[in-house]
Amino acid sequence: MKQVVLQSFPQGNPAPENFALVDAPMPQAGPGEILVKTLWLSLDPLIRFSIDEKRLTGVVHLQPGDVLYGGTVSEVIASNHADYPGGCLVEGRTGWREYAAVDPVGGDRVRGPMRKVDPALAPISTALGVLGMPGQTAHAAAVGMGRVQAGETVVISGAAGAVGSMAGQISKILGARVVGIAGGAAKCATLLDIGFDVAVDYKAPDFKAQLSAALPEGFDVYIDNVSGDVTVAVLPFAKFRARMPVAGFIAHYGVGMEGPGPDHMPGFMRIINSRSLEIRGFSGPVVAGEAGLAEMAQWVREGKLDYREAVVEGLENAAAAFCETFTGGNSRVGKLLVRVAAA
Amino acid sequence: MKQVVLQSFPQGNPAPENFALVDAPMPQAGPGEILVKTLWLSLDPLIRFSIDEKRLTGVVHLQPGDVLYGGTVSEVIASNHADYPGGCLVEGRTGWREYAAVDPVGGDRVRGPMRKVDPALAPISTALGVLGMPGQTAHAAAVGMGRVQAGETVVISGAAGAVGSMAGQISKILGARVVGIAGGAAKCATLLDIGFDVAVDYKAPDFKAQLSAALPEGFDVYIDNVSGDVTVAVLPFAKFRARMPVAGFIAHYGVGMEGPGPDHMPGFMRIINSRSLEIRGFSGPVVAGEAGLAEMAQWVREGKLDYREAVVEGLENAAAAFCETFTGGNSRVGKLLVRVAAA
Repeated sequence: MKQVVLQSFPQGNPAPENFALVDAPMPQAGPGEILVKTLWLSLDPLIRFSIDEKRLTGVVHLQPGDVLYGGTVSEVIASNHADYPGGCLVEGRTGWREYAAVDPVGGDRVRGPMRKVDPALAPISTALGVLGMPGQTAHAAAVGMGRVQAGETVVISGAAGAVGSMAGQISKILGARVVGIAGGAAKCATLLDIGFDVAVDYKAPDFKAQLSAALPEGFDVYIDNVSGDVTVAVLPFAKFRARMPVAGFIAHYGVGMEGPGPDHMPGFMRIINSRSLEIRGFSGPVVAGEAGLAEMAQWVREGKLDYREAVVEGLENAAAAFCETFTGGNSRVGKLLVRVAAA
Repeated sequence: MKQVVLQSFPQGNPAPENFALVDAPMPQAGPGEILVKTLWLSLDPLIRFSIDEKRLTGVVHLQPGDVLYGGTVSEVIASNHADYPGGCLVEGRTGWREYAAVDPVGGDRVRGPMRKVDPALAPISTALGVLGMPGQTAHAAAVGMGRVQAGETVVISGAAGAVGSMAGQISKILGARVVGIAGGAAKCATLLDIGFDVAVDYKAPDFKAQLSAALPEGFDVYIDNVSGDVTVAVLPFAKFRARMPVAGFIAHYGVGMEGPGPDHMPGFMRIINSRSLEIRGFSGPVVAGEAGLAEMAQWVREGKLDYREAVVEGLENAAAAFCETFTGGNSRVGKLLVRVAAA
């Protein structure tokens, strides 16, 4: 069977040569374990932290030669665990490989036991997107910390991504006016398709003028997935007591603690203090909460959420697609998935 | 009578030559107005925003020749308003002058009518400190947004200042371990005097080692009055789900939106996201709330709050003392006040 291993630590943004597709012996399920066949693999930008040369606090750390870490939906094909019989579908972090033998209940202290996926509820790939961690994060950002109210203005960076596209639609359901920021005309057109009121292209030469026109009275909530130049441009539009859920900061994932000058901390602190800005970061364990996910499932059943999936075919194309998410080089909209095998 | 006017806009930190002490005709109380004699003047670093060349949103903007803006405790010496008879003591924003004629109820939309000061409760100067805006801000930061719990570790920058020294003592009352950061041995000694567990000197060559030793398990709450290099050094010690009330950012008051590189935004966004940090800025209107002030008054009566006042004698020395607060050049601890006249 095939798997993708870390070849070398990336310096800055990851590049395809940091990864290698290799053959590996077929794994066997040990006592209490299950053998799963990977159907869908999530390409999650947060993996960048696990492949940094420097070990980061609270993050799984990989070494060259290790299989890449990643969420999957898989089918159980052999089982030594009564709760997970053959044929059942599971979501978990089994990595970038065609098959894996795993302990379904003891392996992951952060997320708990592997979650069973009900194929009657929605397409099973949604367990990695709208009905998985990105959907949960979008719900927690917009409904939870963002406290989006009818009539408010919500701005979303990385709006075409898995979290951003959901957060925008949730904000629309809540009655807000929603401005999405994405790179390129195709992504911006899709944002309007799925119900955003305005789409602003951060790659356009008149980005700042577009942004200013889109926010004549400023924003109440800024759901940030990106940081960097986009956030520096958005922050001055904060209204008094605005809220800023930070679901990601992909512009800086490869940067470390300091980037090239000028220093934007003075302006950030000035706006935090003078506008009484409220900020909260979201990483995995914070967003856990079944209530939000249940509401998302209901909205999916009612057809209120237009979730999009960008599908890459085959494990051999995973690394290149993953790398493109860091450079804005992809034109994909929605949750980025690899179809590793047909169900 | 004497008053202090803005002579020129400061570039960066304010300097004494930006101010001028001038003679002015004695004001007269018009219909509905009162004539007050200034007893105490607060030197509030936030005035920096009102004397910036650039007009800032939501801030009173002064021009050269205008009297400096500032909170005072005054005595009514002539009155055309029945609610404010001669002899009563009032707190309001009457500015850097020996006498002022003001409308006691209509002049200040942000803070409401002038507040009467009860000399039986505590020394009247406390209406500008522990029982005024700084005390309210400290209470809102520690009790409100900071949600300080017994057994937690609280770090405070600008700990010898009016807000910081109160926030530290409130955190002690709440049962926390409190680490104060201040500049110089004298200020650090005073922090220990008023009950801080540890005092860290940011001017010492081993500042980072002191900080690391003071925070072996990181911090739960960071009450920031300073920003700049101090905050860059403190942030990596954030525990998961730490809270960061931002009561001020004096290191950047004269800087504008950008400072010299490197850019510290990448590290700040990384910590916000990966530690699920919660941040909230506090400016004036947010902290209004009589409940906090009532609790502060009770703690003062019970002797639980050791409030310190740093008194500058005479309006002619106000500008120099104000300027020193921006450069760390003063060795004063507590609320910085000018005694303009004896009561």
